[in-house]
Amino acid sequence: MYIPTFDDVKVARERVTPYIHKTPVLTSTFMNDLTGAELFFKCENFQKAGAFKVRGASNAVFGLSDEIAAKGVATHSSGNHALSLSYAAGRRGIPCHVVMPSTAPQAKKDAVIGYGGIITECEPSTTSREAVFAEVQAATGADFVHPYNDPRVIAGQATCSLELLDQTGDLDAVVAPIGGGGMISGTCLALSNVAPDTKIYAAEPKNADDAYRSFKAGHIIADDAPDTVADGLKVPLKDLTWHFVSNHVEDILIATEEEIVDAMKLIWQRMKIVMEPSSAVPLATILKNKDLFAGKRVGVIITGGNVDMDKLPWMKN
Amino acid sequence: MYIPTFDDVKVARERVTPYIHKTPVLTSTFMNDLTGAELFFKCENFQKAGAFKVRGASNAVFGLSDEIAAKGVATHSSGNHALSLSYAAGRRGIPCHVVMPSTAPQAKKDAVIGYGGIITECEPSTTSREAVFAEVQAATGADFVHPYNDPRVIAGQATCSLELLDQTGDLDAVVAPIGGGGMISGTCLALSNVAPDTKIYAAEPKNADDAYRSFKAGHIIADDAPDTVADGLKVPLKDLTWHFVSNHVEDILIATEEEIVDAMKLIWQRMKIVMEPSSAVPLATILKNKDLFAGKRVGVIITGGNVDMDKLPWMKN
Repeated sequence: MYIPTFDDVKVARERVTPYIHKTPVLTSTFMNDLTGAELFFKCENFQKAGAFKVRGASNAVFGLSDEIAAKGVATHSSGNHALSLSYAAGRRGIPCHVVMPSTAPQAKKDAVIGYGGIITECEPSTTSREAVFAEVQAATGADFVHPYNDPRVIAGQATCSLELLDQTGDLDAVVAPIGGGGMISGTCLALSNVAPDTKIYAAEPKNADDAYRSFKAGHIIADDAPDTVADGLKVPLKDLTWHFVSNHVEDILIATEEEIVDAMKLIWQRMKIVMEPSSAVPLATILKNKDLFAGKRVGVIITGGNVDMDKLPWMKN
Repeated sequence: MYIPTFDDVKVARERVTPYIHKTPVLTSTFMNDLTGAELFFKCENFQKAGAFKVRGASNAVFGLSDEIAAKGVATHSSGNHALSLSYAAGRRGIPCHVVMPSTAPQAKKDAVIGYGGIITECEPSTTSREAVFAEVQAATGADFVHPYNDPRVIAGQATCSLELLDQTGDLDAVVAPIGGGGMISGTCLALSNVAPDTKIYAAEPKNADDAYRSFKAGHIIADDAPDTVADGLKVPLKDLTWHFVSNHVEDILIATEEEIVDAMKLIWQRMKIVMEPSSAVPLATILKNKDLFAGKRVGVIITGGNVDMDKLPWMKN
């Protein structure tokens, strides 16, 4: 297991800059009054391909030698990593193979295809996914870019917090969602080097609180199929992300489905931005732990904005 | 009828700056590819009180002498002007009286109250509204700030286009929605002075196309109760706004309800911003008149972001 270093982050920042947006940091008097904290929302929903994941994907894709790149990249994902890797591969002009369950929404398949990704469908089970992915990799020789348990990906995600600090100056805390732990690991990697006093909180849905339970137990606990509206946060920690979470995270805070949806709707209504349920978990946890953040300067990572407009979680469908 | 001048706009800009946001201009590769134009979205949905109307309201409120201001301001509106005037009056610490139909949504009433406005209800008819408004004005001596047919309001709205040009440099055209004509009149007032070669297009719902028909006929045509999803654009032109529209607007373009909703959803999905149906009319008209804008640098005014999240127009309710 290679653990990425801050030197890797510096290389990543140079490498990905031409392919990503420097996303804005928004503030809101309303949200500050509501929470008692001074919140700085890092808006990766405005990022290329609609999510922070393009940072890690671009770092992986543009770090490949020409020889390896020629065979393309591959991953299994039905979410933002698939979009982001397709986008980055497209910018480099190399193939991107994505293994997705046949049951994935057509809109997600269309989005991957729209960015130039090549989809191979599997059955919606881990066994099928792994078998199909092995076939695709054998047939193509494509380089596997894991959605989060990959040092190149984590070093790429780390550029987000570096950028945030450049934009805001010192922060007392940063709160980011946790699923597999890619964003949180990147945040730990960046801040432990440039702002070791900034506390890092991970925010997780109560319905998918495997990271919370892992953190309390001191070892990885992986759930089989958690069910949460925050669909980007269902995946478990892996060895590399566990390394960062267990060493650098101050605490993991959890929020219920209702709290997440309420926070999401509040952000849409008051801040006029479109973001995913996963991105609302940090605000939901801040609202229920006000004492922890009162009077503090707090970075909040809005991780992505890819939402099915026809299935908003507060609408009856 | 006093017609505001560019000197009034310069005064307005100085006056309102402390109370409003300098809103961002967003660009989108996707939207440029789709339209063939280079679009600059002026995001007044991020404005204080959620809409450009705070510019005109602030100019009116902060231009009052202390003696007149002490009696407060008054208006009739159930939309963004009511919110904006309440906000501006609150910042000056003077009363704001708003006459609203009893049938207005509770959410809108709550929002006005939230900004400190004092609501007096009327029946949902012009007769009742005018009678109740006359009573409120007689009882309070408050200064009437019309939602758009007021030189102070138009001079305030004009600051939006000045700011846009500062942010983008020269533009070939600007497209803004038209209802009563306040924003368009401000745009005409600003651009005819600082960028007379920039063409000004007004965008109107086909279901409320009284401005379009007025423009073609050469005199004001006012409809009784047009029905459109773009609820900010139902009101008719008045003498002052007609002056600017008839003298400076290049053309009025219309879009159907379906085209407006499609454009709105597209902006939410691809640009990750929350904006009102009214604000989608410009993009809807650009999409159906691509030849007019191809290869051009075009400013698009996103006028506001106050939406009922429980009644999005593409959802079945």
